[in-house]
Amino acid sequence: MEIEAVILGNGDYPSHPYPLDLLQQAPYVVCCDGAANEYIHRGHTPDAIIGDGDSLSAENKKKFADIFHPIKDQESNDQTKAIRFLQAQGKHRIAIVGGTGKREDHTLGNISLLIDYLQEELEVRMITDYGVFIPTHNSQTFTSYPGQQISIFNFGAKGLQADGLVYPLSDFSNWWQGTLNEATGTEFHIKASGNYLVFQNFR
Amino acid sequence: MEIEAVILGNGDYPSHPYPLDLLQQAPYVVCCDGAANEYIHRGHTPDAIIGDGDSLSAENKKKFADIFHPIKDQESNDQTKAIRFLQAQGKHRIAIVGGTGKREDHTLGNISLLIDYLQEELEVRMITDYGVFIPTHNSQTFTSYPGQQISIFNFGAKGLQADGLVYPLSDFSNWWQGTLNEATGTEFHIKASGNYLVFQNFR
Repeated sequence: MEIEAVILGNGDYPSHPYPLDLLQQAPYVVCCDGAANEYIHRGHTPDAIIGDGDSLSAENKKKFADIFHPIKDQESNDQTKAIRFLQAQGKHRIAIVGGTGKREDHTLGNISLLIDYLQEELEVRMITDYGVFIPTHNSQTFTSYPGQQISIFNFGAKGLQADGLVYPLSDFSNWWQGTLNEATGTEFHIKASGNYLVFQNFR
Repeated sequence: MEIEAVILGNGDYPSHPYPLDLLQQAPYVVCCDGAANEYIHRGHTPDAIIGDGDSLSAENKKKFADIFHPIKDQESNDQTKAIRFLQAQGKHRIAIVGGTGKREDHTLGNISLLIDYLQEELEVRMITDYGVFIPTHNSQTFTSYPGQQISIFNFGAKGLQADGLVYPLSDFSNWWQGTLNEATGTEFHIKASGNYLVFQNFR
């Protein structure tokens, strides 16, 4: 998909070339609060900084006051605030980098929220240092390479079946039971009704 | 709880003093496959090494052949193989360190599996560099400190209510909606029927 914006999250700053290139080539970059500090330190200028400002340095808060959009909302985390900010501008095709690492409860929340965004008909993907998370609705074909590690997290989908994966899928009773699968060739197909999350690791 | 064994997982090697101390003082240490390489490199000797051996160095595989227990089982990951190995010895009070970091699909799987172990009446906790995950059944009181960051992940519990947290709990429609709460004092109480996972961050 052609990305309209990249969100740089509060997790570990990306180190893999894929998320770094995405960030470099992004037409529009939103930093979540303190993530802006490192991004600016590396010589970049974000298009917007979102959050409650509690981890943004005093210097950056002052210097980038014109693009800092403080949003107070106890119901959403910084990642979701950034999504809402982009949504309001009509930007729907979004990549999230830096969304994992550091506190694991944040990592779990940030990944799971991808399913919320899917339900709002946004096209959001998360690119980490290890692979990509793709929130998916119903049946879908994915590009892969032989031996690629694939994990499927079930968020209520029924009738899960796969072509092109080593291990068969089934209607998991627990949502994490589709982890640690593997692609057999250059594409695989998942048949399902409902929402699930696909993780494909980098080569 | 008094720990009977510590599992060193395949994620990032611990760097926080809490998981490192646990590992140091453990009466029994099981390393998941390649995790043994770093543990041995740091001058320790595990009591057992579990896994399919694909990430254990050839040197260690040879040198520690007497404590290496290769387990082929496509249905379980290395963490669960280690749990089964300890369970067979009657060891039920287990701490997992090194269970997070690196591939996020592994992190998600390893954390979620804590609920599986709870259902088998094992007392398993995961200690990361950022805090502790405690799988919990029904109502429970937790020790805390004022301002401690608390996240609650709901795995099917009903009637969730809390005393001693800043934000009220409710019957989340999504399991990650209980993240980013905060303790008001030195303990908090969760009332619920069913299983949920509590994350408490370190001071």
